[in-house]
Amino acid sequence: MAIKASLSGFPEWLPAQRIVERNILDTLRNTFEIHGFVEIETRAVEPVSQLIAKGETSKEIYLLSRLQAQPDDKHSDKEIGLHFDLTVPLARYVAENAGQLDFPFKRYQIQKVWRGERPQEGRFREFIQADIDVVGEESLPFHYEIELPIIMARALRNLPIGNIKVLVNNRKISQGFYEAIGITNIEEILRVVDKLDKIGVQKVFAQLVDLQLATDSQAHDILKLAQINGGLEVIDKVKAIGHQSDLLLEGLKEIESFLTIANTLEPGVVTADLKIARGLDYYTGMVYETVLVGHESLGSICSGGRYDRLVKSGKKTYPGVGISIGVSRLVSKILANDLIKPSRKVPTCVLVAVNDEDTRIVSDLVAKQIRARGISAETSPTAAKFGKQIKYADKRGIPFVWFPPIITNLQNVQDVIPNLEHQVKDIRNGEQQIVNINLWNPAISDMHVYLC
Amino acid sequence: MAIKASLSGFPEWLPAQRIVERNILDTLRNTFEIHGFVEIETRAVEPVSQLIAKGETSKEIYLLSRLQAQPDDKHSDKEIGLHFDLTVPLARYVAENAGQLDFPFKRYQIQKVWRGERPQEGRFREFIQADIDVVGEESLPFHYEIELPIIMARALRNLPIGNIKVLVNNRKISQGFYEAIGITNIEEILRVVDKLDKIGVQKVFAQLVDLQLATDSQAHDILKLAQINGGLEVIDKVKAIGHQSDLLLEGLKEIESFLTIANTLEPGVVTADLKIARGLDYYTGMVYETVLVGHESLGSICSGGRYDRLVKSGKKTYPGVGISIGVSRLVSKILANDLIKPSRKVPTCVLVAVNDEDTRIVSDLVAKQIRARGISAETSPTAAKFGKQIKYADKRGIPFVWFPPIITNLQNVQDVIPNLEHQVKDIRNGEQQIVNINLWNPAISDMHVYLC
Repeated sequence: MAIKASLSGFPEWLPAQRIVERNILDTLRNTFEIHGFVEIETRAVEPVSQLIAKGETSKEIYLLSRLQAQPDDKHSDKEIGLHFDLTVPLARYVAENAGQLDFPFKRYQIQKVWRGERPQEGRFREFIQADIDVVGEESLPFHYEIELPIIMARALRNLPIGNIKVLVNNRKISQGFYEAIGITNIEEILRVVDKLDKIGVQKVFAQLVDLQLATDSQAHDILKLAQINGGLEVIDKVKAIGHQSDLLLEGLKEIESFLTIANTLEPGVVTADLKIARGLDYYTGMVYETVLVGHESLGSICSGGRYDRLVKSGKKTYPGVGISIGVSRLVSKILANDLIKPSRKVPTCVLVAVNDEDTRIVSDLVAKQIRARGISAETSPTAAKFGKQIKYADKRGIPFVWFPPIITNLQNVQDVIPNLEHQVKDIRNGEQQIVNINLWNPAISDMHVYLC
Repeated sequence: MAIKASLSGFPEWLPAQRIVERNILDTLRNTFEIHGFVEIETRAVEPVSQLIAKGETSKEIYLLSRLQAQPDDKHSDKEIGLHFDLTVPLARYVAENAGQLDFPFKRYQIQKVWRGERPQEGRFREFIQADIDVVGEESLPFHYEIELPIIMARALRNLPIGNIKVLVNNRKISQGFYEAIGITNIEEILRVVDKLDKIGVQKVFAQLVDLQLATDSQAHDILKLAQINGGLEVIDKVKAIGHQSDLLLEGLKEIESFLTIANTLEPGVVTADLKIARGLDYYTGMVYETVLVGHESLGSICSGGRYDRLVKSGKKTYPGVGISIGVSRLVSKILANDLIKPSRKVPTCVLVAVNDEDTRIVSDLVAKQIRARGISAETSPTAAKFGKQIKYADKRGIPFVWFPPIITNLQNVQDVIPNLEHQVKDIRNGEQQIVNINLWNPAISDMHVYLC
């Protein structure tokens, strides 16, 4: 269960929930790094002029102003706002640092983004996004359009969230097909086609015709295309509709190559779905959406595509392929549905009991020695009765309580400690045993918090 | 060398520099977790009313406003600003969630904070802070005042930044002493004493007297106290000045206990320094500063103390002990002085060469198999001549280039791959050997990027 945000749209988690989020972030990061992606972190703000370059998003921007700005500061202060995604900052970062980056530049970025939306139920105004992009200088081979969604699929498969499905389309197919049937107002039509899942075939058809976006015959063909999905057979299905253009053929060749290779690399993860219209005004090749199998109603948890013009800087153009996960939304769904829990509420594996406050140093030194072997340990907050100290551990899910020897003479205490009798209790089953402080180890599964 | 911020006060790092920062953040996090601290992440914004509760900082706040806010939104939107530290958010988080937290609550928090200062050379307006705090319900034992700076010292010692020194004072000593010599305007005097290192004894004396903050004799005693520093001998030195009060004695007892235990736990790290005046208006017990030995001029890189009233919520009071590192400032100094460099510029350990584009899948499958053993691998961006592919690795510091077998028949390629001849070249020394894909491992030191 998620805690209620005291500020609408700004979610926060309890410590145990943050462990879930952190574990997911670590999994994403490890997956990106094992594929050779390097991290960048950009500042949270951008000049407003850069943020509103994409007109549509201007309503979502949080502007910054200094509470005590002086009138004469204005000239030296550019108008700045919080970034609403990680693509605008990437483009700016690449333009600024191109001379010092190695291309193709494979970067990942995991940061908060902000959207200054009107407050409404369920919308996040602050959330974590995790992006991977490959940016080329002047050119970028097609194979990255296969690689990126595969990497994201692997990242998501490493999370205990069940099966996922990557749905793909190709801008060239839609555009090539539409041009072949004599349609030019592609974006307008795609906005209607995008409602297919919500309002159904009949209503989409009616809208296309009623709004005079397409003739009966065009609308018919548009819907035929949009309803095609599946594996390699989609290519023949598109051809069977009976329209052709060079661009369409190029798109079909790309999706064929995509499906063939993606299915060899990660069998069963990708499906073509030609109704996907996401960002077709922006993307220029493959486009991706990702759904959780069995939770399709959550919508796409991770999307992206190929864009030929991420940056134009001086005479150079930088094409890219990128894909992005809305982490907070995913975490929020996971927590709301109790899909994952941490094995304990703190990192601590061992609580070292304290015999009495005057000899707390003994327990502190024992804890230090346990930590030296990579085991998370803390000393009991008080020298209360052992039952109360065990309760401290139990409340937090700490599996082991360590009982150090009673030492009253603190002379050379460090040297004395290893030679005396130590006992460890597994408080889950009550088993207590005499142990050697230099040899005792918890089960590997108890070393770190894990998700279950 | 750090890159120049294109927006004054908002630093950004190149990818290799971010590896340094990330490594430092990981070290801090690991140290906090091995001591049993749990992470929280709070939203970046707080209601302005909470942010300006501490009057002094009001000038440093960035206010947020929505670019396209409608007049009728105003009622539903509280005035919010970016947090300028992690203590105000912690206090609010504890007050809101006290019922669901376990006390003493040991939390760490590593996040960006923002200060809306006038732009000036070298001042950060956005930076990362790493905080640990222990918060008690109604009470909090003194031993945490020893534990926290020790944990921070261990975290800093785990970084390759040379020796550090934790300088401590105790509010009760200063206040008790000042009261004993008949002084009440303690805060005002401490602001002058705080300049001791900068302007010297004579000028501090002169200012105290000239500003009529103290009599000659009082100023004399004040400076005697402020010049005391060292180990346990400081207690006798303070007593030797010849003034006494219960509060002073309590403070001396605390610092004695602090020095004794801290020196047993981490010999040679802590020193008493009774001129430290940091936040003495706010802290109520031990206070800490931390300097890099040999780089004392950088000032304190990490500070904190005990505060009896972090939160007052309803009838309950929550005392705390906290300590905080300004990570960006530390990273910036490290980068500027070239103190640390990453062993390579990307996480990749192995670049898998591509024989030709038509059989790229062979290289992709080899890379997948290498990754399955936890080794970071990527496939070459193009099937260029091997010399060019090696250059791609060399530029990034990738130590190994893998040459997969030439396979032209892609039927059952997965099964065929392990049985054919693979070669690996260590491009640092040019040594190339035939290897078994299921057995080859890099040296442990080459597995991951490390700092050197």
